[in-house]
Amino acid sequence: MNPVRVGIAGFGTVGRATADIIRQHSEWISNRSGVHLEVTAVCRRSGVRPEDAPPGSRSVADWKALVHAADVDLVVETMGGTDHPLELARACLQAGKPLVTANKNLLAGHGDEIFALAASRNLPVGFEASVAGGIPILRVIRESTAGDRLRAVYGILNGTANYILTRMQNQGLEFRDALLEAQKAGYAEADPSFDIDGLDARDKLCILARMAFGARVKVDGIPTYGIRHIRGIDIHSANRLDCTIRLVGSAEETDSGLELSVRPWLIERHSILARVEDVNNAVFLRGDRIGTQMFYGRGAGGDATGAAVVSDLIDIAHDLATGKLRAARIPGFADCREATLSQHPTPTGWYLRLTVKDQPGIVARVAEVIARYGINIESLEQEPHLPKERLSFVITIEKVSEPTVQSAVAAINAFDFMLEPVLLLRVE
Amino acid sequence: MNPVRVGIAGFGTVGRATADIIRQHSEWISNRSGVHLEVTAVCRRSGVRPEDAPPGSRSVADWKALVHAADVDLVVETMGGTDHPLELARACLQAGKPLVTANKNLLAGHGDEIFALAASRNLPVGFEASVAGGIPILRVIRESTAGDRLRAVYGILNGTANYILTRMQNQGLEFRDALLEAQKAGYAEADPSFDIDGLDARDKLCILARMAFGARVKVDGIPTYGIRHIRGIDIHSANRLDCTIRLVGSAEETDSGLELSVRPWLIERHSILARVEDVNNAVFLRGDRIGTQMFYGRGAGGDATGAAVVSDLIDIAHDLATGKLRAARIPGFADCREATLSQHPTPTGWYLRLTVKDQPGIVARVAEVIARYGINIESLEQEPHLPKERLSFVITIEKVSEPTVQSAVAAINAFDFMLEPVLLLRVE
Repeated sequence: MNPVRVGIAGFGTVGRATADIIRQHSEWISNRSGVHLEVTAVCRRSGVRPEDAPPGSRSVADWKALVHAADVDLVVETMGGTDHPLELARACLQAGKPLVTANKNLLAGHGDEIFALAASRNLPVGFEASVAGGIPILRVIRESTAGDRLRAVYGILNGTANYILTRMQNQGLEFRDALLEAQKAGYAEADPSFDIDGLDARDKLCILARMAFGARVKVDGIPTYGIRHIRGIDIHSANRLDCTIRLVGSAEETDSGLELSVRPWLIERHSILARVEDVNNAVFLRGDRIGTQMFYGRGAGGDATGAAVVSDLIDIAHDLATGKLRAARIPGFADCREATLSQHPTPTGWYLRLTVKDQPGIVARVAEVIARYGINIESLEQEPHLPKERLSFVITIEKVSEPTVQSAVAAINAFDFMLEPVLLLRVE
Repeated sequence: MNPVRVGIAGFGTVGRATADIIRQHSEWISNRSGVHLEVTAVCRRSGVRPEDAPPGSRSVADWKALVHAADVDLVVETMGGTDHPLELARACLQAGKPLVTANKNLLAGHGDEIFALAASRNLPVGFEASVAGGIPILRVIRESTAGDRLRAVYGILNGTANYILTRMQNQGLEFRDALLEAQKAGYAEADPSFDIDGLDARDKLCILARMAFGARVKVDGIPTYGIRHIRGIDIHSANRLDCTIRLVGSAEETDSGLELSVRPWLIERHSILARVEDVNNAVFLRGDRIGTQMFYGRGAGGDATGAAVVSDLIDIAHDLATGKLRAARIPGFADCREATLSQHPTPTGWYLRLTVKDQPGIVARVAEVIARYGINIESLEQEPHLPKERLSFVITIEKVSEPTVQSAVAAINAFDFMLEPVLLLRVE
């Protein structure tokens, strides 16, 4: 079988790992899958030194040269960012070449355009690497649950945030110190906002919702809260409730429409979800027939992400070699409908942490607000021995819908004794 | 697109669920995957009443009539057992029709013949439903890890055994009572041997090893121990060690060859593996690049297994409709090699429970045997207040290889104070 010639645009961590895997596992891949992959061209904005290019490949000037190279059958985009990758995706598909990308940001923002273009050309786009790194969640949704109706997809989608929360839990660190550790370990960027404010998880959730429900979702329509305001005292309070805290992206089909959010959850400490530690990811699926399934593994890193890229390459290369490309196998290309977002969110329990300057009557006034919204308090605890100028107390409440709890929170935030806004966590 | 016409041989729980899913999700399947499935014929040894046949299908006399029916493009085998399914598989492939089967026993025993026949005819055989019910572990291994070298596959492969162990752990039941409960709940057969003695898990492990390592393994070459001899006292001792007990099938590639076994493991109580409860299954993969991944879900049941059957049907139907069958995508067809079984098993920790008739000097004599084999004792505990005529004590030992511990166990079993053979668990 003729080799399928691969060009890699963006020769950073993931790009290099991809080339490495192709080289090292070449024989194994061809034995198992009957395809022969060969990296023929690479490029990188900062240039690739000839000695760094994979054996048998050449370093080309830029992504345009790579996309149009006569010896490139299949383009891998691992550049990151959005502008150039979007131009690359257009050029690649217009040139009649399949695309494999690890770029969640690109697909969450411009998936409609890219998938429509791919469908019109009957070209596949591989993007397994864009969500949850090495965990093959997109292929599972696309193929393995193809006969089922999925109702929910949710999980831990960002490894950096999970690392920080795990360090806070296990080492008793404050958020700031755990973040510094994550940065030192190379898990968090100098500007960590994308990871810790939930934006990265939001992009992934957007792609998951498309795959699971055939639903077109705009990222800015997803309520998104990160972990920046979680403090040691919250971890401590969670433990007292036999829980821990995890940042969860969740999409659920309900009778009143799709419910989407990225936010920290308070979850039972010995649940499987809570056992997902460090930079690992875990995605849960719930379907009418399959029940609840969970998929766990490394959410990031060159090797795991590169392995996901290579799985797409093998899939597409097989089709290229046999002359049968199958764009249509990826759902959400053509018949993706605009998502109907639920206007009546399902009630859940909530955790509220208040930070106040102590004065008489605080508990009474807060309890009065909560009662006014018809909310039942489940537990209330004020830690002893805290300084009066900066006192925290924690309230958990019985199930109410988010608009109700948000109204109560707004009223509480308006009190003059509040030193910072209420921290709100969903209780699962 | 023309409908792909499906015949279902063996119209029991899984067969009916398969037909149900095809009917109920017909539109969804065709929207998402572009294929149209239609059940045209069913059969069952005990007969199918016309009113029980899926709408639009007919009940035929037997599997032979079904396989050769002109209006059947694709055969689903959910009969169970081995003899007829093997004949069916041969007839089906010889007739040029793809086969989908949920029959682990058939594939573990006759996989070589079936896969070779399928390869020679370039026909796909779908068998996702044969391992771990609704968990798409075979597709994940085949496609998603196609670029990686897997080193280990292991997990909880039998839901019935896991249900019994969970009941013993959580409700404090003895084995016998937990088994009765499992039988009442419909999880265990009247003759439960296949599940509780590890034979079912062994079949599945055999299929997993073929998929993960391209290794041909004979089922009777896999050391297999069940859970029949586990007692409440073992669960209790496990708890004291902050552990629980799970029946684990494990295949691992080591420098000295493949290590395979089905046996109960003592595992850390809060590990993810220990959190897999009731009839759920979980399969772990470890690869050079992907690291450790875990896949969790319902291991059995008509709906979950039927959903796995349908995922295979969609896959194959797509290829049938486009005229491109891809037998070669399933590894282990042609180039499957005879597995080299390791002669030097990796050392692990072990748990030994001795049941004795008390007399002076027992501990000294047992400890002397253990010392003679150069084994270090890690812990030794004898429960107080037990009757002297039937006393249990538990020893955990540091890492040694299985042959060493088995020699020591044989020597201990020879003592006249032993009331029953040592119960041996692997400590993870």
